[in-house]
Amino acid sequence: MNETEEQPKHKPDALRRLLAPRSIALVGASAAPASLGGRALRNLERFPGAVYPVNARYQTLGRWTCYPSVVSLPEAPDCAVLAIGSGSVEPALAECAARGVGGAVVFASGYAETGRTEDRAAQDRLVAIARAGGMRLVGPNSAGFANLLTGAVCGFPEFPASSRPRPGMIGLVTQSGALGLALSQAAEHGALFSHVLTCGNSCDVDVADYVAHLAEVAECGAIALAYEGLAGPGKLARAAEAAARAGKRVIVCKLGLSRTGASTARRHTGTDPGSHDGFRTLCDASGMVPVERIETLVETATFFAKTPGPSRAAGVAVASGSGGTAILAADAATRAGLALPQPGDETLARLAAALPPFAAAGNPCDASAQVAADPALMKVVAEALLSDPAYGALVVPWGKAYGSENIAFLGEAALRFGKPVCLVWMSQWLEGPGAKEAEETPGLALFRSLDACCAALAAWQNGTRPAA
Amino acid sequence: MNETEEQPKHKPDALRRLLAPRSIALVGASAAPASLGGRALRNLERFPGAVYPVNARYQTLGRWTCYPSVVSLPEAPDCAVLAIGSGSVEPALAECAARGVGGAVVFASGYAETGRTEDRAAQDRLVAIARAGGMRLVGPNSAGFANLLTGAVCGFPEFPASSRPRPGMIGLVTQSGALGLALSQAAEHGALFSHVLTCGNSCDVDVADYVAHLAEVAECGAIALAYEGLAGPGKLARAAEAAARAGKRVIVCKLGLSRTGASTARRHTGTDPGSHDGFRTLCDASGMVPVERIETLVETATFFAKTPGPSRAAGVAVASGSGGTAILAADAATRAGLALPQPGDETLARLAAALPPFAAAGNPCDASAQVAADPALMKVVAEALLSDPAYGALVVPWGKAYGSENIAFLGEAALRFGKPVCLVWMSQWLEGPGAKEAEETPGLALFRSLDACCAALAAWQNGTRPAA
Repeated sequence: MNETEEQPKHKPDALRRLLAPRSIALVGASAAPASLGGRALRNLERFPGAVYPVNARYQTLGRWTCYPSVVSLPEAPDCAVLAIGSGSVEPALAECAARGVGGAVVFASGYAETGRTEDRAAQDRLVAIARAGGMRLVGPNSAGFANLLTGAVCGFPEFPASSRPRPGMIGLVTQSGALGLALSQAAEHGALFSHVLTCGNSCDVDVADYVAHLAEVAECGAIALAYEGLAGPGKLARAAEAAARAGKRVIVCKLGLSRTGASTARRHTGTDPGSHDGFRTLCDASGMVPVERIETLVETATFFAKTPGPSRAAGVAVASGSGGTAILAADAATRAGLALPQPGDETLARLAAALPPFAAAGNPCDASAQVAADPALMKVVAEALLSDPAYGALVVPWGKAYGSENIAFLGEAALRFGKPVCLVWMSQWLEGPGAKEAEETPGLALFRSLDACCAALAAWQNGTRPAA
Repeated sequence: MNETEEQPKHKPDALRRLLAPRSIALVGASAAPASLGGRALRNLERFPGAVYPVNARYQTLGRWTCYPSVVSLPEAPDCAVLAIGSGSVEPALAECAARGVGGAVVFASGYAETGRTEDRAAQDRLVAIARAGGMRLVGPNSAGFANLLTGAVCGFPEFPASSRPRPGMIGLVTQSGALGLALSQAAEHGALFSHVLTCGNSCDVDVADYVAHLAEVAECGAIALAYEGLAGPGKLARAAEAAARAGKRVIVCKLGLSRTGASTARRHTGTDPGSHDGFRTLCDASGMVPVERIETLVETATFFAKTPGPSRAAGVAVASGSGGTAILAADAATRAGLALPQPGDETLARLAAALPPFAAAGNPCDASAQVAADPALMKVVAEALLSDPAYGALVVPWGKAYGSENIAFLGEAALRFGKPVCLVWMSQWLEGPGAKEAEETPGLALFRSLDACCAALAAWQNGTRPAA
């Protein structure tokens, strides 16, 4: 029972209260470290707001006073996390409603996703209780959400560490908790997340709500979305348009576009996966950028978070330290429909003056293996190409993994010229020296696939969607 | 001046003498650690055969006697590595020919790849000298090659460490030295290489020669090939057929298939990139498996090295710990044309008995997040699916990165059932806990892309090429 287009039931600030809470109750908080209640409590250790563990079996838990019930809490918390079995959810939720809680997260499974009528009815009863109490509801069958800007981690898995606001932060929205966690582990090598928001069965709060919320969060520069199904596309389209008005793109991987995938999706969260054509229409109309391969979602969203504003020119330049990677870049650019025009005479002269005779001035520019021995060479090449008005962006296929002062330089040049520089990690030492440094460099977008890089650049240029 | 179809000039064991040498001369050996001669010498430190540094400026270099000339060496070495500038190559090569050297590697650039007539003529003179002396010639403009089984590293870059023979070893063949190095860094997270062979301008030894040699090396289970151009396709087709007869597949990424890529390729090594159609015809005729994205080359080749023999059934099973990744697997399988039939009644009963009520028995089988808490669950699921005669392979999308006893179990089960198990790493912590362990597990093939995994399985089933 998702919200349909015609029934916007909630005050707009209700979701904000839930997703940026100042106080959090954890019903089912536990001292058992492996239990959901124990894991969720550990996730709240760094939350600077009020934390209220609720469990009649404890007087205290860690440094917190433990309360026997939601009704007994000293204030009505903005968010209640229900880390309890499905049999106890309904009365606990009713208690939350009675206490004036802002919104709730339900971990328990065994609702609409089983496909059984009685389980869907139980889910509908949760929605009814929440609506009657003016509460928003995340789940059931959900891993919860993490607001990494405020430290409000309202879920049981290990989310990335909270972080001060930084350029290039993305908000990650997934229906599947497991997928959200797998993708957010990109934080381990330098990707920056403002939020990781998962919604499971989406009985009330769905991915469209999350996108609409992130549209309003200034620190979130782009939104990465992976979802299976929706009650209707209109709400997501409106949310994506709100994000676009706020200057941020929604990069989306739609699960279940195949027939077998769709039937698997129906079993998973009980939401309607919709059709392939419907998804394409939705992207075209709302400006969402689709990606087919889930492994490119986070890097593509990070590119958009680091690359505000439109392209200044239709051409893209390639500067490489090897002929082989230059050829691969040209092939990938062609597949994505990117133009690689030759540089102007002035640029050519600058390149020819700097490069050794066995290097190749032009576009792609193969500066030769000399760039590893002489970092200054890549600087000259990058500056020459970024100066050329024919180019709106620079792609740098990066061969062997090694630390290099050029990584910081390329990020600085990108900001100085107001043109994105995409460093494409060609080494199969995927997290080798320099990768994390590149990812953490403002202005520099790191990709691990030339095709993903070129598709992102094409989507950025077109303002619509990437070539296939 | 590559060898053409009609002119097989060399005795077949000449290449073997060069690529598995018992003695290596290094002309231009140097005490300067950053020089090519210094780097190439360091690469020979663990070579158990005879090493002869040649440089009139030194009496000794490290633990080795240094010789003033090739002519003065105590024996005719199997391989001479020329770490000298292009101006000195011609006389040094003539000296090698006079001394009866088996073959030579030329690092120097400035030959056919510049496009200048006089540089191509200089390259042709090198070929003539080598032919007259009965020597094979790698390069010029080459980073050299590494035989990691014998420790014969005849090149200047950092190659992977040598290794005793192990199941799942692949031979890597590239024209571009930089690309060979970038790809071979997969060794840092557990990929196993028997050889890394690069040939630069390919004036004599080309990628087809390398493939033909690897076809004969028992320890090499599959061949990963990335190349730009060839004198003619016939020699590569014959080499791939020889590899097929030896039970090993050639996985190939062709650079320069686009028009811009092709013109970049002509500038790089001066070889003819050929046409897209010609490449497809070559793959179809010779059984080579094409991959479009270079980042999937090493993992696809490793899959084939770990997966001998034909598929026992047309169906593929998917066992996942999350509904989201199960849906993504179904989508990718559909794109690759893989069949995901439902399990038989007996299998269904085994799954239903083992799984919690909120999990999904069937194919894909979503064993639920319970598999992380209860590793035994995945074991039951994997065994049930591998036992089912409908399935020839099992795909396991692996969500969060964490160490797990199941990785070893899955590899063991793959060998026991004689069916490949592909673990697809969904976490964006690309080298997180468990990844290297999975890669090093015999029987288990690790992919970082569901599409690459499904394309490889389709190619394996078809015995031809993967779906796009």
